[in-house]
Amino acid sequence: MPHRLLPVAAIVASLATAAMSDPLPSWNDTDAKARVVAFVENVTDPASDDYVTAADRIAVFDNDGTLWAEQPIYFQFLYAMDRLAVRAADDPSVLTSDVLRAAAEGDIAGAMAGGEEGLLEVVMQSHAGLSVDDFQADVRAWLDTAVHPQTGQPIRDMLYQPMLELLRYLRDEGFSTYIVSGGGVHFMRAFAEDAYGIPPSQVIGSAGKSSYQIIDGVPTIMKDPGIAFIDDKEGKPLGIDSKIGQRPIFVGGNSDGDFAMLEWATAGPGPRLGLIVHHTDADREWAYDRDSHVGRLDRGLDEGPARGWVIVDMASDWADIWP
Amino acid sequence: MPHRLLPVAAIVASLATAAMSDPLPSWNDTDAKARVVAFVENVTDPASDDYVTAADRIAVFDNDGTLWAEQPIYFQFLYAMDRLAVRAADDPSVLTSDVLRAAAEGDIAGAMAGGEEGLLEVVMQSHAGLSVDDFQADVRAWLDTAVHPQTGQPIRDMLYQPMLELLRYLRDEGFSTYIVSGGGVHFMRAFAEDAYGIPPSQVIGSAGKSSYQIIDGVPTIMKDPGIAFIDDKEGKPLGIDSKIGQRPIFVGGNSDGDFAMLEWATAGPGPRLGLIVHHTDADREWAYDRDSHVGRLDRGLDEGPARGWVIVDMASDWADIWP
Ligand SMILES: [Ca+2]
Ligand SMILES: [Ca+2]
Repeated sequence: MPHRLLPVAAIVASLATAAMSDPLPSWNDTDAKARVVAFVENVTDPASDDYVTAADRIAVFDNDGTLWAEQPIYFQFLYAMDRLAVRAADDPSVLTSDVLRAAAEGDIAGAMAGGEEGLLEVVMQSHAGLSVDDFQADVRAWLDTAVHPQTGQPIRDMLYQPMLELLRYLRDEGFSTYIVSGGGVHFMRAFAEDAYGIPPSQVIGSAGKSSYQIIDGVPTIMKDPGIAFIDDKEGKPLGIDSKIGQRPIFVGGNSDGDFAMLEWATAGPGPRLGLIVHHTDADREWAYDRDSHVGRLDRGLDEGPARGWVIVDMASDWADIWP
Repeated sequence: MPHRLLPVAAIVASLATAAMSDPLPSWNDTDAKARVVAFVENVTDPASDDYVTAADRIAVFDNDGTLWAEQPIYFQFLYAMDRLAVRAADDPSVLTSDVLRAAAEGDIAGAMAGGEEGLLEVVMQSHAGLSVDDFQADVRAWLDTAVHPQTGQPIRDMLYQPMLELLRYLRDEGFSTYIVSGGGVHFMRAFAEDAYGIPPSQVIGSAGKSSYQIIDGVPTIMKDPGIAFIDDKEGKPLGIDSKIGQRPIFVGGNSDGDFAMLEWATAGPGPRLGLIVHHTDADREWAYDRDSHVGRLDRGLDEGPARGWVIVDMASDWADIWP
């Protein structure tokens, strides 16, 4: 008990400094936070055997359900539905299936009736046929007004404050922070810098086909129909290898779509931290895991703890959820 | 003539400072160097109308024939031939065509008889079937001893000193420097950091297929047969859009394979610089352009000057070529 030797003023000053310098104020003082901080302090301490140079401090995060919310359906899908409605108003012939018709009418349940394949169809039909520049301008304009269908909250505010703090903390400690998400790479880049401080080159995602065209004399990258890459499940470690070329030492996700990237990253030599956001808070956010149609988390819950991954219990580990 | 008012000592000191601070000492004081320096000074001067923030100072460079030599054949192909010979010694049945047999025997002319398709066949047959980690270790080991078939010079020394200086100069001025090359991304990452100071995440290249596998319990990224992406011609702007997500403001290349990326990047708003290395020096390096089987430069020579691109005449613009 060394503290009994310290004058009260010194103790107070020390506590005040600790509070002021808390890099994760929206996290409760539970085991999850302690393990994250211990990991970061360990790999950034030049005196530690586990010291990692800044060049190797690569941290990757899933987006939907990890950095922002994803219920009742991925927000990119809400955008796709709105955009499809605009396209169909111009040209109803684009609605070639029941799923597309439901989506254009804003009927989420009907649009989801087609399963994963139906979701992809809606995204592809709505996202293709315009340039990357025009698409991203359209996404930004949509985010300026889009509200959540259940809560009425602006979509762009439905970020997780504890994860924003974690991203900033890691960067302050010399990490490079990446998004590695099943979401569309062009969609996420439209807001990742503003929302998360993550530049376009550090956003990895799924991608449709694209082409280089000279349109009215102007060199243009066009978004075309068809899928080029799905950045999910085994696609996540492959996407990281393809675009970063290094194995991350810190990985955050929330679903079994992140299992392979958690597995690969935490199997590397030296210190590694895997983290899973478990949605347990039906009051402040949503509670879902093994049976959810989005963000299904099953194997990660079963195997994560034995693999040493931090399972964040949103209800008990996060003091605040929203910014 | 303000100099006549300065004491001689001041003039000497001023000249010495200029010489010491020359960021491109291996470039002759010709128009090419003057235009590069003027561009960089312009976009980095906060008082300039053309000022570009550091986040947007993206510079991309082709590799073969732009940062290192490429005659008589791409160096990656020399590696592929050597590796194929090793594989064939173990298992001669991998040599299923005349092109593969010629390659395994080190017969460059015979291996090239199959054209681009033959080159791809040799690269794919030699590069697949091992993990990315093992492949890159093998490339590094090869580079430790590989010598050029004509000059006997170590392959790893056949970098262009003026381009090394240009890369360093740009980074010192806040640019991010990328490789965007038809060469294999895993091959180039094995040496890009040592050779050019460019980390794996800033190397964009062609890629074979790959897969995520658990091998004897170890999560592994395997290199598989088949082509996933060719980073050449229109593939270059598409690769940049996919991986960087921003349009570069500085582009260097040497062949018509770089035309689309030069065209796209220099068509953007604001200040842009395109640069083509023209191989004109048969004494110190090689002289080739319109009729070359590697690094063919035809349209770029015809249209580059009118598009405002700097055509670097290696013989007259570079004082030194090799480090
Ligand atoms: Ca997710
Ligand atoms: Ca080239």
